[in-house]
Amino acid sequence: MQPSTDRTGIRFRPRGPAAEVEEGTVLAPKFDDDGLLPCVVTDKDGGGVLMLAYMNAEALALTAETGEAHYWSRSRRRLWRKGETSGHVQKVVEMRVDCDQDALWLVVEQAGAACHVGYRSCFYRSVPLGGAVAPGRPALVFRETGKSFDPAEVYGDGA
Amino acid sequence: MQPSTDRTGIRFRPRGPAAEVEEGTVLAPKFDDDGLLPCVVTDKDGGGVLMLAYMNAEALALTAETGEAHYWSRSRRRLWRKGETSGHVQKVVEMRVDCDQDALWLVVEQAGAACHVGYRSCFYRSVPLGGAVAPGRPALVFRETGKSFDPAEVYGDGA
Repeated sequence: MQPSTDRTGIRFRPRGPAAEVEEGTVLAPKFDDDGLLPCVVTDKDGGGVLMLAYMNAEALALTAETGEAHYWSRSRRRLWRKGETSGHVQKVVEMRVDCDQDALWLVVEQAGAACHVGYRSCFYRSVPLGGAVAPGRPALVFRETGKSFDPAEVYGDGA
Repeated sequence: MQPSTDRTGIRFRPRGPAAEVEEGTVLAPKFDDDGLLPCVVTDKDGGGVLMLAYMNAEALALTAETGEAHYWSRSRRRLWRKGETSGHVQKVVEMRVDCDQDALWLVVEQAGAACHVGYRSCFYRSVPLGGAVAPGRPALVFRETGKSFDPAEVYGDGA
């Protein structure tokens, strides 16, 4: 039985049997083969889903200790304090873990907007229901009425 | 440029450049190396996160067509209509896709409870904030006051 940890060396308790993981009070996260946990982020105001991001053990520890959301950027392959460039930081109001401890949920106070495209939430388009899915169908429908910020201004033109 | 599809052979549009994926109206999901997309599920009533599950292309197509949530069970390695054993089906009110189309968000009417452990939500425990993370610390805190159902009754004793 190995401790659940990742390459950063931050150690959590070894994972016990399912009943202990599911019914107990010991934090023993199950990182995937890349050392990551998916993390759902919802808005304290309104409750909608802002984004889905990933944490490694270091990001999880930093988030729990500081109350500011930290993630692992899979595209940039580095630790990422949300808002470090944009100023759009996330103050964590609550952090939850799921039954089998392989997913997290953060409720946050979101400064500015969560999405790098400029929308408040990354989930700004809906997939219409009720028809067959085929190439080009169904067409997505925009649900946010406008961007919260201009990415070129916040990240520079190379964003 | 390959069509975004998975082993079931259901085809979506090929993914274009980032601007098209992010700003367009074409559904072109990016499945991971296992052919899966993570899917956040929130409760129409109250808005909280019920669970995080995974869809392959077939589950996504069935969910969009029928309006009932279907997933890919990673543990059982098969398609799974949520509630097929327990009766705890999910009627989809809205389906959204995120900016880079590698995550989904379902708003659902949840019959019974979402979690196989018996709680309404899989995220029934919180991780206290503000202290260092170390083996055994912090201890998780239960946030749901009781189970919605008895798993042994619903799934049988072998659940």
